[in-house]
Amino acid sequence: MIRVAVAGATGYAGAELVRILSGHPEVELTVITSRQFAGQRFDRIFPAMAGRVHLICEELNDERVCDRADVLFTALPHKLPMNIAPAILKRGLRLIDLSADFRFNDAAVYEAVYQPHASQELLGEAVYGLSEVYTSQIRAARLIGNPGCYPTSVLLPLIPLVRSGLIEVEGIVADCKSGVSGAGRSPSLTAHYGEVNESFKAYKVAAHRHNPEMEAYLGREAGRSVTLTFVPHLVPMTRGMLATIYVRPVDGVTAQTVRECLAAFYAGRPFVRLRPAGMPPDTLHVRGSNCCDIGFVADDRTQRLILMAAIDNLVKGAAGQAVQNMNLMFGLDEAAGLTQVPYAV
Amino acid sequence: MIRVAVAGATGYAGAELVRILSGHPEVELTVITSRQFAGQRFDRIFPAMAGRVHLICEELNDERVCDRADVLFTALPHKLPMNIAPAILKRGLRLIDLSADFRFNDAAVYEAVYQPHASQELLGEAVYGLSEVYTSQIRAARLIGNPGCYPTSVLLPLIPLVRSGLIEVEGIVADCKSGVSGAGRSPSLTAHYGEVNESFKAYKVAAHRHNPEMEAYLGREAGRSVTLTFVPHLVPMTRGMLATIYVRPVDGVTAQTVRECLAAFYAGRPFVRLRPAGMPPDTLHVRGSNCCDIGFVADDRTQRLILMAAIDNLVKGAAGQAVQNMNLMFGLDEAAGLTQVPYAV
Amino acid sequence: MIRVAVAGATGYAGAELVRILSGHPEVELTVITSRQFAGQRFDRIFPAMAGRVHLICEELNDERVCDRADVLFTALPHKLPMNIAPAILKRGLRLIDLSADFRFNDAAVYEAVYQPHASQELLGEAVYGLSEVYTSQIRAARLIGNPGCYPTSVLLPLIPLVRSGLIEVEGIVADCKSGVSGAGRSPSLTAHYGEVNESFKAYKVAAHRHNPEMEAYLGREAGRSVTLTFVPHLVPMTRGMLATIYVRPVDGVTAQTVRECLAAFYAGRPFVRLRPAGMPPDTLHVRGSNCCDIGFVADDRTQRLILMAAIDNLVKGAAGQAVQNMNLMFGLDEAAGLTQVPYAV
Amino acid sequence: MIRVAVAGATGYAGAELVRILSGHPEVELTVITSRQFAGQRFDRIFPAMAGRVHLICEELNDERVCDRADVLFTALPHKLPMNIAPAILKRGLRLIDLSADFRFNDAAVYEAVYQPHASQELLGEAVYGLSEVYTSQIRAARLIGNPGCYPTSVLLPLIPLVRSGLIEVEGIVADCKSGVSGAGRSPSLTAHYGEVNESFKAYKVAAHRHNPEMEAYLGREAGRSVTLTFVPHLVPMTRGMLATIYVRPVDGVTAQTVRECLAAFYAGRPFVRLRPAGMPPDTLHVRGSNCCDIGFVADDRTQRLILMAAIDNLVKGAAGQAVQNMNLMFGLDEAAGLTQVPYAV
Repeated sequence: MIRVAVAGATGYAGAELVRILSGHPEVELTVITSRQFAGQRFDRIFPAMAGRVHLICEELNDERVCDRADVLFTALPHKLPMNIAPAILKRGLRLIDLSADFRFNDAAVYEAVYQPHASQELLGEAVYGLSEVYTSQIRAARLIGNPGCYPTSVLLPLIPLVRSGLIEVEGIVADCKSGVSGAGRSPSLTAHYGEVNESFKAYKVAAHRHNPEMEAYLGREAGRSVTLTFVPHLVPMTRGMLATIYVRPVDGVTAQTVRECLAAFYAGRPFVRLRPAGMPPDTLHVRGSNCCDIGFVADDRTQRLILMAAIDNLVKGAAGQAVQNMNLMFGLDEAAGLTQVPYAV
Repeated sequence: MIRVAVAGATGYAGAELVRILSGHPEVELTVITSRQFAGQRFDRIFPAMAGRVHLICEELNDERVCDRADVLFTALPHKLPMNIAPAILKRGLRLIDLSADFRFNDAAVYEAVYQPHASQELLGEAVYGLSEVYTSQIRAARLIGNPGCYPTSVLLPLIPLVRSGLIEVEGIVADCKSGVSGAGRSPSLTAHYGEVNESFKAYKVAAHRHNPEMEAYLGREAGRSVTLTFVPHLVPMTRGMLATIYVRPVDGVTAQTVRECLAAFYAGRPFVRLRPAGMPPDTLHVRGSNCCDIGFVADDRTQRLILMAAIDNLVKGAAGQAVQNMNLMFGLDEAAGLTQVPYAV
Repeated sequence: MIRVAVAGATGYAGAELVRILSGHPEVELTVITSRQFAGQRFDRIFPAMAGRVHLICEELNDERVCDRADVLFTALPHKLPMNIAPAILKRGLRLIDLSADFRFNDAAVYEAVYQPHASQELLGEAVYGLSEVYTSQIRAARLIGNPGCYPTSVLLPLIPLVRSGLIEVEGIVADCKSGVSGAGRSPSLTAHYGEVNESFKAYKVAAHRHNPEMEAYLGREAGRSVTLTFVPHLVPMTRGMLATIYVRPVDGVTAQTVRECLAAFYAGRPFVRLRPAGMPPDTLHVRGSNCCDIGFVADDRTQRLILMAAIDNLVKGAAGQAVQNMNLMFGLDEAAGLTQVPYAV
Repeated sequence: MIRVAVAGATGYAGAELVRILSGHPEVELTVITSRQFAGQRFDRIFPAMAGRVHLICEELNDERVCDRADVLFTALPHKLPMNIAPAILKRGLRLIDLSADFRFNDAAVYEAVYQPHASQELLGEAVYGLSEVYTSQIRAARLIGNPGCYPTSVLLPLIPLVRSGLIEVEGIVADCKSGVSGAGRSPSLTAHYGEVNESFKAYKVAAHRHNPEMEAYLGREAGRSVTLTFVPHLVPMTRGMLATIYVRPVDGVTAQTVRECLAAFYAGRPFVRLRPAGMPPDTLHVRGSNCCDIGFVADDRTQRLILMAAIDNLVKGAAGQAVQNMNLMFGLDEAAGLTQVPYAV
């Protein structure tokens, strides 16, 4: 059994890690930490898991984590993971970080968007944990920067097409929509029921910190610097994310070409599902699962290829992909612990 | 492996059966039927399960079911199950019926509420599938009348107290609230988004067909005829049911007595969870799981005991309890196939 | 024009006052106060009202209010209104307080539930602002304790029946359900989207502070001390409140008697609507309006009368009833400023 | 008083017309028709309006309408209005049609998208009722083709910029999101609660019938044929529509230029509100009102202008704009009957 610790277990992404890991057949969940709820039973904070999770939340203590775990998931605010990573890795643990701290290999890009980076020496080896794309690097990694939810939903449909040269990488528009759980569990007006219910709006228009993350990996794949127009929106639902992406296909590319490219790229991968023509993806179909459903329409009339990808922002967009990455790193079936059949509604 | 057939697989309860059974480690799902969608791939109707369920919906045909299954679940409208039950049982299959057809041992009660009963000879052996209450009978049964969702939420907290003589059985009020999926998947104004969203209302006030079902089993437990005031309400959410039940405790009964009674009754049963004092149950905590969370307050000031029970109407209130009953009938762990860790949100 | 001030204008009840008053044909809204948003434009906080409300939020200052208003609405936390009331009244303004501070004529009852009362000398003259019940007293009042939302929904259907002696006042059960806006606009886990959406639960079971308020007025009407079992629940919707009330009719009372009693009591009152038999009230039908819809079922089988009342918790349950009271106090049509036709959905 | 008839009064747009018109100070609502509910009281179908609307639904009969009305609103399925229009106009009534039948001056465009047009002789005089844009033509019209909801949300922000030559008209992307009431009141799986709640998805991708409508009017304004990429999405809320529109500004255009253009165009118009920089529009802010809130971001980094417009699909997107057009046609204040202050939540 792999001994696992989760730091920041009482946010939504952390609780989702606890849910998945406590049902994972190859894992023993040994440590969960929470600054706010240290000393309290996890199932008092999340009664859904009563009878299934019996752990007490602890203060985060590197030593105690390292004594009892083989791998640490950090679901902490940006900046904290970069400070504890060196000690964790030195003790031989693997680290899967759900913050942005290890998503960029280039410290300058990180620092332009976030803050000074305290562990730049680790950025070279950190692997971007987009499971289906950087699979072999993830298998060999000891440090994972788990992707943001929006970048996951945008990069999974785009990267195969960029690699195959089927689309123009400049001028892409990503119009994305997220459920409210993406705003986290800390009370705020942003996620206050009365302000969100029966409301739909854009936020951080062309100014969201996931924008440079998308551009970094599109640029790496394209072999040149890329800009992307990205507008996130908030949807009155708890879980789910849909990306609607507008790109220009290169000449001669047809719906058939696109379908073959995506089908080939994701062949054998259990979590990326290509939707039949005429049946766009729906966040309801991936709610609670690690799936990413992809659909597209080639609009010959306007010379646009419209790609759509649906994920659960807390699963494939955070905790589920993190566990998938752990599976890859430890040589397990990538679907281990993630095999639950999705709900119809 | 137990070979299983589901009749009526494309309603919400049927689809939930397919979801649970297709992930059940001891089950091979061999036949699913749907009148409306016969000939179509199940995962085209419920794309959530694409990649996990590969079956084609069939017309219901007794012979074909019997050739390929050891047990049949019927998630059909009332009246259909009573007509096919004799043939199914004669061929040696077990039958778990989610309609009301086999919930009453007394044909007269059934016929007063529903319609003439075509298979009265089977009512004597049919077992009411309230899993934690009639466990031993279920283990020995070949025909189960699976309880209604409202009766499940009302009887689980009440029956232990009735058996122990802690409450007065007359004058009970059950104020119940259900998510909209209880109205089924057929389009209707009742479940039309605009009519339900931002709406809360009672319906079938003191006139719902689950009322006699509750009275039948409370009466059986009390050893005498019982009436109950039952008002169902519709909540703008997909899944979930909460029963708030007002009863009079007999003299000398305290919160401690009640807690000990319930704790003893459900000791060792994985799906009934007693909530700590001061922390009432919440439908969110059981969403998607087979759990029934029970809480209560003894209001000395008004001499009332207020019991609350939360279930997912599609799981413990329908498909989950049905599978739990199958597990009992086939000598499996009662939680087999139902072990998924519940979601925090 | 009546010059009006609103203290606490940026909570949900306060903003609803601003909405109604700024469209009121006999009112000039002159002062709005907000501790948190003092100095800011109201329409920056509530952009819905941009172009319609041009006021700047101020700090609450008695002198400035008194110089510019004839009546003050206080939508402030309990305890603040009792401290400013004497000065306001001395200057000749009328005061309509939406907190609990002036709802009880008996200081001992208030203090048992809330805190020491600093202006007990005013309790004798304060009028409980249940508009349709204490109409003549309200007309003559200079100080109104505006009713709580739950008491409004429970007392409107009950008081006519108590006055007519049609029901037993002991043993009443009020099972109430409220939309989330009742929790206010301050961010909290209680009203956090992820915790409330797809959730239904009871809270403060038999321990809510509106319970003594209901008992005080039922007791006054009955001429003796009364206890009531009251359980509030939270519904995943923004606005709306439904009370389901279980009472015992006295011998000989029929559905017809009840209907005639309620119809006579509310004859000529524009906001209380009696629902036809078999059509229970729905919170959706009163969303955004000052209506209270009442329905009932006489369940002969169990000797219960089941009353249901639906209101919008922010309108008839707070701001709307407060404006209705102002109309009565100033000799206007009680519906002035409240005549908007309700939405179908 | 203007005598008004509404045909198709029991769909969502029709009921919204009844709501607005029954509160309109210059209107007497004389006739409402409904095929499905003919002979029934309107307030039995929409109890929200009990006490305010006392009409009985009738079968649609041209003669009876013409005898009793000065203007007819048709909220009927496409094809019906074109058949009754000639008789209505011949009798001297004005006609405001909410279907697509009179939105296109070019019959060929209509017929390519819809069906053969039976009253082509009227297309030349029909005026497209985009109130703030074609104001003078509307004032003089006797026949209005009321715009679709999506075109309203897309054309209001775009047309001023096209007229001023500030943007390139080719290559525009309109990513639009609608509340569920847009699917109408007839029960269907599309608007079934369980299928829509907690779901977000695109539909009719680049194939919606509002696409040619947008192109027709963008093309007219630009003086040349235009194509537009349009993807509609369904949001789990009842009312509201947000358009996010991606365009390329011409060289030298800045945020300031755009703001000045829009501010000048809509100066003095009560229903179009320009949002402050950094505060994008939100459907919640226009819920239930006739407002269209417009915001934008000039993204210099990608050379995109991102426009956002929020409307209530049933009001500015249908019934409200229709009444605004009636006001213009009859020489009233364009806001008459539409002055209700919007709700904060």
